[in-house]
Amino acid sequence: MAARHGTTTTGREPGPTGPDGDLAAAVVAAHGALRAGRPLVACLTNEVVVQVTANALLAAGASPAMPRHPVEAAQLAGLSGGLLVNLGTVDDVQEDAAGRAVGAAAAAHVPWVLDPVAVGVLDHRTAIARDLVRRAPTAVRGNASEVMALAGVGAGGRGTDTTHGVDDAAAAAADLASTSGAVVAVSGKVDLVVAPDGRSLRVTGGSALGTRVTGFGCALGGVVAAYLATTPPEGDPLVAVAAAHAHVSAAAGRAAEGARGPGSFAVAWLDELDAVTAEDVAALVRPGAAA
Amino acid sequence: MAARHGTTTTGREPGPTGPDGDLAAAVVAAHGALRAGRPLVACLTNEVVVQVTANALLAAGASPAMPRHPVEAAQLAGLSGGLLVNLGTVDDVQEDAAGRAVGAAAAAHVPWVLDPVAVGVLDHRTAIARDLVRRAPTAVRGNASEVMALAGVGAGGRGTDTTHGVDDAAAAAADLASTSGAVVAVSGKVDLVVAPDGRSLRVTGGSALGTRVTGFGCALGGVVAAYLATTPPEGDPLVAVAAAHAHVSAAAGRAAEGARGPGSFAVAWLDELDAVTAEDVAALVRPGAAA
Amino acid sequence: MAARHGTTTTGREPGPTGPDGDLAAAVVAAHGALRAGRPLVACLTNEVVVQVTANALLAAGASPAMPRHPVEAAQLAGLSGGLLVNLGTVDDVQEDAAGRAVGAAAAAHVPWVLDPVAVGVLDHRTAIARDLVRRAPTAVRGNASEVMALAGVGAGGRGTDTTHGVDDAAAAAADLASTSGAVVAVSGKVDLVVAPDGRSLRVTGGSALGTRVTGFGCALGGVVAAYLATTPPEGDPLVAVAAAHAHVSAAAGRAAEGARGPGSFAVAWLDELDAVTAEDVAALVRPGAAA
Repeated sequence: MAARHGTTTTGREPGPTGPDGDLAAAVVAAHGALRAGRPLVACLTNEVVVQVTANALLAAGASPAMPRHPVEAAQLAGLSGGLLVNLGTVDDVQEDAAGRAVGAAAAAHVPWVLDPVAVGVLDHRTAIARDLVRRAPTAVRGNASEVMALAGVGAGGRGTDTTHGVDDAAAAAADLASTSGAVVAVSGKVDLVVAPDGRSLRVTGGSALGTRVTGFGCALGGVVAAYLATTPPEGDPLVAVAAAHAHVSAAAGRAAEGARGPGSFAVAWLDELDAVTAEDVAALVRPGAAA
Repeated sequence: MAARHGTTTTGREPGPTGPDGDLAAAVVAAHGALRAGRPLVACLTNEVVVQVTANALLAAGASPAMPRHPVEAAQLAGLSGGLLVNLGTVDDVQEDAAGRAVGAAAAAHVPWVLDPVAVGVLDHRTAIARDLVRRAPTAVRGNASEVMALAGVGAGGRGTDTTHGVDDAAAAAADLASTSGAVVAVSGKVDLVVAPDGRSLRVTGGSALGTRVTGFGCALGGVVAAYLATTPPEGDPLVAVAAAHAHVSAAAGRAAEGARGPGSFAVAWLDELDAVTAEDVAALVRPGAAA
Repeated sequence: MAARHGTTTTGREPGPTGPDGDLAAAVVAAHGALRAGRPLVACLTNEVVVQVTANALLAAGASPAMPRHPVEAAQLAGLSGGLLVNLGTVDDVQEDAAGRAVGAAAAAHVPWVLDPVAVGVLDHRTAIARDLVRRAPTAVRGNASEVMALAGVGAGGRGTDTTHGVDDAAAAAADLASTSGAVVAVSGKVDLVVAPDGRSLRVTGGSALGTRVTGFGCALGGVVAAYLATTPPEGDPLVAVAAAHAHVSAAAGRAAEGARGPGSFAVAWLDELDAVTAEDVAALVRPGAAA
C-alpha cells in the first residue's frame, strides 16, 4: 500500500497520479477499508432514489441511514462515518435538515459529499447548493453541467441530464476544487476526479445503461461518502472518491454484460456492487493525464 | 401517417376511430415522436411510486424530473414537455406544488395529466382533484372507480383498487371528458380512452400481474404525459393517450411471459418498456366501438 | 384448525405453544385467512422502503395504501383492516399523521403495528415511539436493539443495525409485551414472538441476504399488519404475528437459493412472497421453548 496523501505530487513522489502501481495499491486499500469498516452513512437524498441509494450502499458494503427530520439529520450526521447531501427533491424541511447535518458533520469531523442534482436548471436549489458549497464539503459529485453551474460557468443542463461532456467541465472542476477545498468529481463516459491541489484521476468502465435507470449517479454520491468514511486520517480523499466511482463503474460494466434492458441491468448492478473485487475496482482508475 | 385531429370523425374522414390502417399509422407516429423527442416530463407524484415512475419513463424513452418544492415544481413544469400530477400521497406541500405547476404548465402551453389516485375513497384528495380537474388537464387517467368518483358518479373504490369494471365507467368518462375538455382514460382489462368530442379508443393487452406490483398505473400516467409532450400541435391527444396505454400494455404482456411472479415481472416490464416497438404498440389500439 | 386463543396455555390445553400439530394448523389457517381476505393495510412508513413495502404486501396477498396527509391517514386507518406505523423517516407531518391514524384505528378497532426503527439511536424518534407504545399497539416489531431500547433497556443499535442478538432481548420483549399489551416480535436469525401473557413462538428460516437489502424488516411490519387484519375476533394475534414472520422468512429462504446477490435476491423475494404456501409458512413456526 503506497498511497501518497495531502501533498502535491512531484517528479520524485508520484502519489496517486504517478505510476499505476502505486495508484492501484491505494485503490485496493481504499476498497479493503470500506469492506472492513462497513461505515454508517447518513444520506439526505431525494425521494426518487432513496431506496436504490440504500440498496447500493448495502451492496457495496456500507450501512445507510436516511433521516428526514432536521433534528434527527443533525444527530445522525454526527454519529455517522460519512454524510451525503443530495438536492434532487429538496423542500424546506430537507433544506433545514441539510444545513443542520452539515453543521454537525463539521463539528464531528465527518466527511460529507454534496451532489448538486440539476443545479443550474432550477434556481431555488442552485442558491441552496451555492450556500452549501461554501461550507467545506469533502467532495462534490455531479455531471458536467451541474459542476459547471456550481462553479458559476454555463447555464446548466436539462433536468438531470448533462448537456456537456466531462472535458467541457475540466476547468470548472479544477476551479471549484480549488476554491471550495473539495475533491470534485465529474461523472460521464470517463469520470474526472480533481483534488483541491490540482491532482486528478480518471475512472473508466461503466455502461450507458447507467443513464437509463434512475439513481445511478445519486447512489454513487452515497458510495463516495462511504469511501470517504473509511479513509484514514493519513489517507487521500482523491483516491477514495475515484475508488468509489470505479466501484460503481466496475459493477455497471459487469451488470451490463447479461442485462436485457434497464430493469435487469439495475438488478444485476446491485448484485455486482456486492461482488466486485478490489482488483476490479483498481483496474478502472487511471492518472488524470492518461484520460 | 394519417392521424386525423381535432375534429369529430365522420363516415368520410374516419380519423383515429376509423379504419385500423389509419389508426395504426397514427400510433406508430406517436411512438416514433416519443423516441425521437425524449421529452422532459415533470412528475408530481406519490412517494410510493416515484422511483418506478422515473424508471418507466427512462425505459420508455423520456427524461423524468420529480420536484417537490412548490417553487421548483412551477419552474420545472414551465420548462418541461409534459407534466404529471398524481395525488397518491398528497400533502400540503405537494398540493401547493401541484397548484403552481398546473398554473405554470397552462402559461407555457405544456400538456398535463391528472391521476386522481383513490379519489372517491379519501375526502381530502377528492376535493383537491375536483379543483384540479376544473383547470383544464389535457388528460385524466384512472381506474373505473376513480373516474366515476371524479365525474361525481359512484362512491369510489377501495384504496387504489377499483370496485367497478371499465364499462361501468364509460358514461362517466364521456361526461368527464366533455365537461373538462380532457382526454379521459379508464384503465382496466381493456382500457377505454375517450376524447372530449366523444371519439374513443380501446387498448388491449397487458397482464393481470400489473395489478400485483405498485406503480404500474401511476407510471402509466407519466408515460401518458410523455406521449402528450411529443404530440405535435396538429396531433391528436386521443391517439397519444391511447398509444401510451398500449406502450405500457405491450411491455406488460411481454414481461408476463417469462415472469415467475410479481418481482420478476416488474423487472422485465422495465426491460420491455425499452424494447417494445411501434408495431407492438399499434397492435393493441382499437377503435372504441370494437371493444 | 385448532388455534387456542386469548388464554394462557396450560399442560392440558397446549395452544399455540403446545404440540406442533395444533400450531401448524393455526398458522395454516392464518395464511388462508390472509389470502382469502386480501385486507386493505394502511402504512405510515419511511420513504426508503415505501415502495418495497407496497410490493411485499401486494405479493403476500394484501392491498396496501400509503397516505401522508394527517387527515387522510386518519380516514384511511379507520377504513383499513390493519395499520402500520414505522418511524424510519418520521418528520413532523408524519408524526401528526401517526397520532391521528392510531386514534382512528383505536376508534374503529383496527389492529395496528408499531415498528420503532432505530429507536434508541435517535432521541427524537425514541420519544415518539415511547408515546406511541403507550397507545396500545396490537404488535410491536423490531430488531433486538430496538426492542430493548423501547423497553427502556440498553442504549440502542447502530442506525438500523442491531448490536444485540435476539436472546439478549428476550426479557425486554416479554416485559414490553406485558406492559404494552402488544405482541412483541424480535427479528433476528431466529425470530422471537412474545404475547402479553408470556406465551412465545419462534420463527426459523430466512436468509442473511435479508440484511443486505433495505426494507426487508420494514416490509415485514406491513405483513404483520396484514395478518392481524385477517385474524378473526376469536383468533390469536400471537399466531398471526408469527405467521407473518414465517411467510416473509419462507420467501427469503426460497429466494436465496437462486440469488446471485442482493439485487436478484430482492426480486426473487417478491416472487416467493406470492408463491409460498401455507405449509411453507407453517413449517417455520416453533413453540418458543424449542428455540
